[in-house]
Amino acid sequence: MLMVPAAADLAYDNIDWQTFVLAAFMTLFIGGLLILGTWNSEGAGLVLRQAFLVVILGWVLVTLFGAIPFLGMGIGLTDAVFESMSGLTTTGSTVLTGLDHLPPGILLWRAMLQWIGGIGIITVAALILPLLRVGGMQLFKIESSGSPEDKAASTTRLLILLLSVYMALTVLCTGTYFMLGMDMFDAVAHAMTTVSTGGYSTHDASFGYFKNWWLHWAATFFMICGAIPFLLYVRATLGNWRDLFRDSQVRAFLGFLAFSTLGMTAWLYGQGGFGLLEALTLTSFNITSLVTTTGYATADYTAWGPGAVGMFLMLMFVGGCSGSTSGAIKIYRYQVLWLFVRAHVKRLSSPNRVIPLNYNGRRMEAEVPTSILAFLAVFIATIGIFTVLLALCGLDMVTAYSASLTAITNVGPGIGAIIGPSGTFQPLPDSAKWLLTSAMLAGRLEILVLLVVFDRDFWHG
Amino acid sequence: MLMVPAAADLAYDNIDWQTFVLAAFMTLFIGGLLILGTWNSEGAGLVLRQAFLVVILGWVLVTLFGAIPFLGMGIGLTDAVFESMSGLTTTGSTVLTGLDHLPPGILLWRAMLQWIGGIGIITVAALILPLLRVGGMQLFKIESSGSPEDKAASTTRLLILLLSVYMALTVLCTGTYFMLGMDMFDAVAHAMTTVSTGGYSTHDASFGYFKNWWLHWAATFFMICGAIPFLLYVRATLGNWRDLFRDSQVRAFLGFLAFSTLGMTAWLYGQGGFGLLEALTLTSFNITSLVTTTGYATADYTAWGPGAVGMFLMLMFVGGCSGSTSGAIKIYRYQVLWLFVRAHVKRLSSPNRVIPLNYNGRRMEAEVPTSILAFLAVFIATIGIFTVLLALCGLDMVTAYSASLTAITNVGPGIGAIIGPSGTFQPLPDSAKWLLTSAMLAGRLEILVLLVVFDRDFWHG
Repeated sequence: MLMVPAAADLAYDNIDWQTFVLAAFMTLFIGGLLILGTWNSEGAGLVLRQAFLVVILGWVLVTLFGAIPFLGMGIGLTDAVFESMSGLTTTGSTVLTGLDHLPPGILLWRAMLQWIGGIGIITVAALILPLLRVGGMQLFKIESSGSPEDKAASTTRLLILLLSVYMALTVLCTGTYFMLGMDMFDAVAHAMTTVSTGGYSTHDASFGYFKNWWLHWAATFFMICGAIPFLLYVRATLGNWRDLFRDSQVRAFLGFLAFSTLGMTAWLYGQGGFGLLEALTLTSFNITSLVTTTGYATADYTAWGPGAVGMFLMLMFVGGCSGSTSGAIKIYRYQVLWLFVRAHVKRLSSPNRVIPLNYNGRRMEAEVPTSILAFLAVFIATIGIFTVLLALCGLDMVTAYSASLTAITNVGPGIGAIIGPSGTFQPLPDSAKWLLTSAMLAGRLEILVLLVVFDRDFWHG
Repeated sequence: MLMVPAAADLAYDNIDWQTFVLAAFMTLFIGGLLILGTWNSEGAGLVLRQAFLVVILGWVLVTLFGAIPFLGMGIGLTDAVFESMSGLTTTGSTVLTGLDHLPPGILLWRAMLQWIGGIGIITVAALILPLLRVGGMQLFKIESSGSPEDKAASTTRLLILLLSVYMALTVLCTGTYFMLGMDMFDAVAHAMTTVSTGGYSTHDASFGYFKNWWLHWAATFFMICGAIPFLLYVRATLGNWRDLFRDSQVRAFLGFLAFSTLGMTAWLYGQGGFGLLEALTLTSFNITSLVTTTGYATADYTAWGPGAVGMFLMLMFVGGCSGSTSGAIKIYRYQVLWLFVRAHVKRLSSPNRVIPLNYNGRRMEAEVPTSILAFLAVFIATIGIFTVLLALCGLDMVTAYSASLTAITNVGPGIGAIIGPSGTFQPLPDSAKWLLTSAMLAGRLEILVLLVVFDRDFWHG
């Protein structure tokens, strides 16, 4: 992968290609050692606890190797790891400025990190998290039968299908961007960070650099595509198109997007200063960007007044669908939570009533809402703890809170003069950057995956 | 009750006594009508749904009658109802300024509202909420046996004991304040708002008006007393002193207070500008005031920097013990949540393990953690919804968020220039005041009690 930006830099006559080649050889060498070192071990499969470790260590290791090219820019270890983690978790917070003047290799590498992180979370969410039963993900367990060989074959087949759909979407997005006027390099880079709902741009002005509204609408469309369960695309390519539009999560997601976009458009238009179509374009793009946890911006929406800021802070909690590239709490958890709380309130006044909980046409195990509630408690507590820790690093309250929130939800930009949609994370102290690096990882791995290894019993017995 | 401030105004030769006498007669008249109108109805007791309605309507009606004296001041309906609700919910947010120059009757009435609200929530939390199974309160259900007459007699006896303990604490607090140098009027007024963890003061500078550190420590002690389960006091007066100090919730509460006070003292002392004893006095008072949801202030702690503000915002979520006068989430919910999440994380890596949950030496019903989780989800969502609604009323984000938080947790002061510890809620628009009035009621009634009546099924079948 590291040879791709090397080639880009070579093509544009940029000396940085050497860094990428060096990084590629280092990665190949250590990766080779790891393969050789474990070649003869019994390959019978992982036990549950090893699966937790593999997911965490995998993400950390790839982040560290992904940081090497940034080290080559001379920005220091903290910034390099931050930028790499922000990429691989598809967060999109950046410590780099002057993007417009950076060499093509590093810009491509940032986009590629998000693209790799995107397919990474799709496969982890489709194949591993349901087995780990984290935060209600057991809802999405794929029923499979047959011998271990059959299962392995069907898993391999599913992986290939997921990757094909992901590549097809990326190519489609690249083509659309190119046809609507982006140059090829920007089209490729932005397609990779759109479909992965990552949000890295090749310009300091983010997507706002492009003044063409058609491009904004195209990006809105492909961000939505990136936030839909990829398993549904796979089923669609196998002929089952109906599921894609009948899925309860997808419907709720699209309905919520439409509702909040129209509401915000009406409000923004009522404020004056924007035409109706302009207001619709602005709100649909920026709301979609936050809800899908992409993090592009076409305007400094924090300048729209305190009501808008409040709304955007709430929208960051939402997230897209499970099994997509988007982060945050995700739609299905709200749906299950709503069903659960409604049943709970009903049972307060009629304690003997039995209220079955169905989601997407199937009866839910009792474990699912409880898992989701535990996830939510941990999610909120984590945002609170990181807010306090960041405030102790000297950040003002709004910056600390929105940084904590944007990192854990993998959105990207925060609120305020420093880390807002027109700022960068560069001025933050190193301590805050390391905190946010951990917060991005925690958020990407649904927090609980990371928390499990902090339990002493995990390492014993 | 309304005749007490009337007497105070008469004694100080203030014409306002007429308002109180008028209010008393109105209350007596309408109360009398209600009694007469329901005299002959079957008194077999309430069904569950009626209990929900009685709690809600009781609080709303008392608030409306409690607002009459404020109407007499000419401050308008919105402000009068806000002030009355803030009193009866023991919140302590105020829309009045120039407290130092107000006549004694109205100052006494404000204190009495909080005192009435305090004993109100103690009895509701001890006798009614456990039966309503709201937010895990079923943990505190009093086991009783025997005939209905026995139960009624023991309930009446318990009510008398609770009221006696409450009055004894108030008298003790009044005496202490008086001996430490307050004049009798201030001592009575502040004792009533200390023991009820209400926080109304007779001075604009709140408790900071009194410069005597001994008074601050006395208030700290009695605020803590008001945040301890009153049933434990009752048991102590019946000879069972051990439970008071062995209770898991009380221990966790005192431990948390000590830990956060010492931590904040070390931090504040390290910042420079305060002596060690001064820092300890300041932090113990103001942290206790926030955690017990009293809302007194002896300093504008929001000027201590962003880290302190973040810390104080977090502390507002905590709350005292269940069955006390304090609001917010309350200690036992954190304890149960911690037990639940820890067991959940353990079961993620060893799915077949059975982990029993014990609280305070007894096995918990499975329903308890689920109820608490539902409560928390609703609590957080309510804070979020009110934040957005308040922002839409034109409040800036910090004011909107801290107003929503301080109202729902029944603390009192918020953060920021307007509603911070040295400000008032006076400048807020009427829409925001009505929103906050509802938020205070929702918070006082553990939100779910209020939510039940919004379920359509509540009114049918």
